[in-house]
Amino acid sequence: MPVRKASSRIITLTTDFGLSDHYVGTMKGVILGLAPGATIVDISHDVTPFEPLDGAFTIAQAYRYFPEGAIHVVVVDPGVGTTRRAILVEAAGQFFIGPDNGVFSMIYDREPHKVLEITNAKFFRTDVSATFHGRDVFAPCAAHLAGGALPPRLGKPIADYTQLALIKPQQMARRVWSGAVLKVDRFGNLITNLHVEHLPDIRTRPFEISIGLRQIAGLADTFGACAPGELANIVGSSGYIEVIVNRGSAAEFLKCVTGSPLEITFF
Amino acid sequence: MPVRKASSRIITLTTDFGLSDHYVGTMKGVILGLAPGATIVDISHDVTPFEPLDGAFTIAQAYRYFPEGAIHVVVVDPGVGTTRRAILVEAAGQFFIGPDNGVFSMIYDREPHKVLEITNAKFFRTDVSATFHGRDVFAPCAAHLAGGALPPRLGKPIADYTQLALIKPQQMARRVWSGAVLKVDRFGNLITNLHVEHLPDIRTRPFEISIGLRQIAGLADTFGACAPGELANIVGSSGYIEVIVNRGSAAEFLKCVTGSPLEITFF
Amino acid sequence: MPVRKASSRIITLTTDFGLSDHYVGTMKGVILGLAPGATIVDISHDVTPFEPLDGAFTIAQAYRYFPEGAIHVVVVDPGVGTTRRAILVEAAGQFFIGPDNGVFSMIYDREPHKVLEITNAKFFRTDVSATFHGRDVFAPCAAHLAGGALPPRLGKPIADYTQLALIKPQQMARRVWSGAVLKVDRFGNLITNLHVEHLPDIRTRPFEISIGLRQIAGLADTFGACAPGELANIVGSSGYIEVIVNRGSAAEFLKCVTGSPLEITFF
Repeated sequence: MPVRKASSRIITLTTDFGLSDHYVGTMKGVILGLAPGATIVDISHDVTPFEPLDGAFTIAQAYRYFPEGAIHVVVVDPGVGTTRRAILVEAAGQFFIGPDNGVFSMIYDREPHKVLEITNAKFFRTDVSATFHGRDVFAPCAAHLAGGALPPRLGKPIADYTQLALIKPQQMARRVWSGAVLKVDRFGNLITNLHVEHLPDIRTRPFEISIGLRQIAGLADTFGACAPGELANIVGSSGYIEVIVNRGSAAEFLKCVTGSPLEITFF
Repeated sequence: MPVRKASSRIITLTTDFGLSDHYVGTMKGVILGLAPGATIVDISHDVTPFEPLDGAFTIAQAYRYFPEGAIHVVVVDPGVGTTRRAILVEAAGQFFIGPDNGVFSMIYDREPHKVLEITNAKFFRTDVSATFHGRDVFAPCAAHLAGGALPPRLGKPIADYTQLALIKPQQMARRVWSGAVLKVDRFGNLITNLHVEHLPDIRTRPFEISIGLRQIAGLADTFGACAPGELANIVGSSGYIEVIVNRGSAAEFLKCVTGSPLEITFF
Repeated sequence: MPVRKASSRIITLTTDFGLSDHYVGTMKGVILGLAPGATIVDISHDVTPFEPLDGAFTIAQAYRYFPEGAIHVVVVDPGVGTTRRAILVEAAGQFFIGPDNGVFSMIYDREPHKVLEITNAKFFRTDVSATFHGRDVFAPCAAHLAGGALPPRLGKPIADYTQLALIKPQQMARRVWSGAVLKVDRFGNLITNLHVEHLPDIRTRPFEISIGLRQIAGLADTFGACAPGELANIVGSSGYIEVIVNRGSAAEFLKCVTGSPLEITFF
């Protein structure tokens, strides 16, 4: 993997810090002090607090749209200050930095990858706090990497990194799969864990999704193809099947949340 | 219009995507992959969902403060994936890219302009999704434009673009105009559609605004000129008359929302 | 103090404008028009509206993590348009621009500093509005400073700038100090005004904090050292003692808000 070039100087941030406190701005100050030319991009700072799986979903939807060499910092870190490790992942020609708590599980699931434990304190801020490794460990490591530090200088490869169990669709009968809601987005769209790659005939074969108290048949082409207020299934922008209400919130309408179960039946 | 210079590399984003999902970050990844030197500026991602008129208001307040050549991407797009067109607007020495659903209506109303339908799929991402043209169409077109693509390469001029009816003040009697609330801002200030340009004697002639159950007389110079909690009329920073409560929310106090009617009477 | 170098071109923004309106984007347009190479960083736009002390806390936690020469614009400005002055503060090798209403009080308290009243209208936008000095005064002054303008060109030193009384811990008895909650962060952590610098033996001596209806004894090393749901005292990332609930909200649990009183007793 090329270690440094212009495009490697993009550093993205994904955290559960919110935007109301100084935390995210402070991380950016640390990065720009060490890597003045870095381009910093916010993915989201509204990851569900303390939920590595929600961080895993967020970065997994975004990374493939960034150029080679991008450095993705993900800080959803309920174990900050304990013995949980800091890691650097190389995958898909990009870098991922964060705590070893499964926040990169969807990357592991999808891409060949190498994982290093970050141990070289030379790349940390002096006086690492026990509560804010985003500022003291992850931001400076990302900045040093953007500035040209070679990954092996940060630490050594490990094989026993944390991989969270991803909720995957289960085949229940010949024509029936069970699944779950992976994420409710800002519009109330229910992003399910049914992916078009694993359901190759979804566009051609009749089917029905059961969720909440409703059955929703077939696939609409897009939001605009449904009447306002209509409930429909679509293939979302990341390839997952989504249950949506055109110009409304499917989550509110169906009283569903992340983790809500569903079933898909083909006819 | 000059096609490329340093300042043309500013790309602004105005959407109804919110900041909790990966959508905005993903658009930025696409832009930076194609135009590594672009400077991306968020105007707002909290436009009222599915309301092109709210997007129209937001970009219309902001664009004139950007340098010549800035490229403004506005994605408030309930018709994504249908046959609604993608357009490029040239106006005021700047560029505007988005769906042809009226989101640029306040620009049309205010500036001489040219509108092109964007049809050249060379400038799109391959595999355009049916649901996320912000990522697949608008972001890459803006990036190519920032990189020097000439507007005529994107598509052909059209004359039948969508222009939404803007709610304009109506003269009701010799001394009376009816108007409406254009926008409630984060402070609860009621931004009305009465503009100082159309009421040239507002600073010198006595008047009263009727809104909700209240009459509010005359013009305060500024927020700080009113007692805390006092209701007043001011000339807002964009030239619209605003009904405000100093250090409080006029919207809550008067139970008003976007669209609420009002009347102004001169004496 | 060096007047211009690469790192001086960082401009940070801290406001109570929120992110739903065009206000912040508009300020960035003004800055980039005057200082095309500036790197703009958001600290927070969710400062408690009209509360200079909350702005004071926010910028005071962040500035020290930025490189020398950074320019910090803070706009929490209930007195906009009145005779309150605009000021430029030099402290800690950095610059601070905002209204003279105490928003830099925690900087004054902590760093040697010089304060200039900004009076040179050459550095303002023409037609300064009465309501949006963020756009018309503070943003353009910051941009000109980033572009190399010498501070003395902006105005003259003053000594009678506004310094808000900071709530400081009071010794109530030989072993007892009273304090208060400085800030509730996004996680519901209660950041107190008890700072580790002023309590040098806090890590070694037994103590108890009384807050709400609870007593919380001793110091946990970090969040992860507590059981989920457990109430604990920790040394926060800025050196203030924080009362926290691991993976929960201490503010909700204890019904505390900014300003809530507390007592610390050493044994």
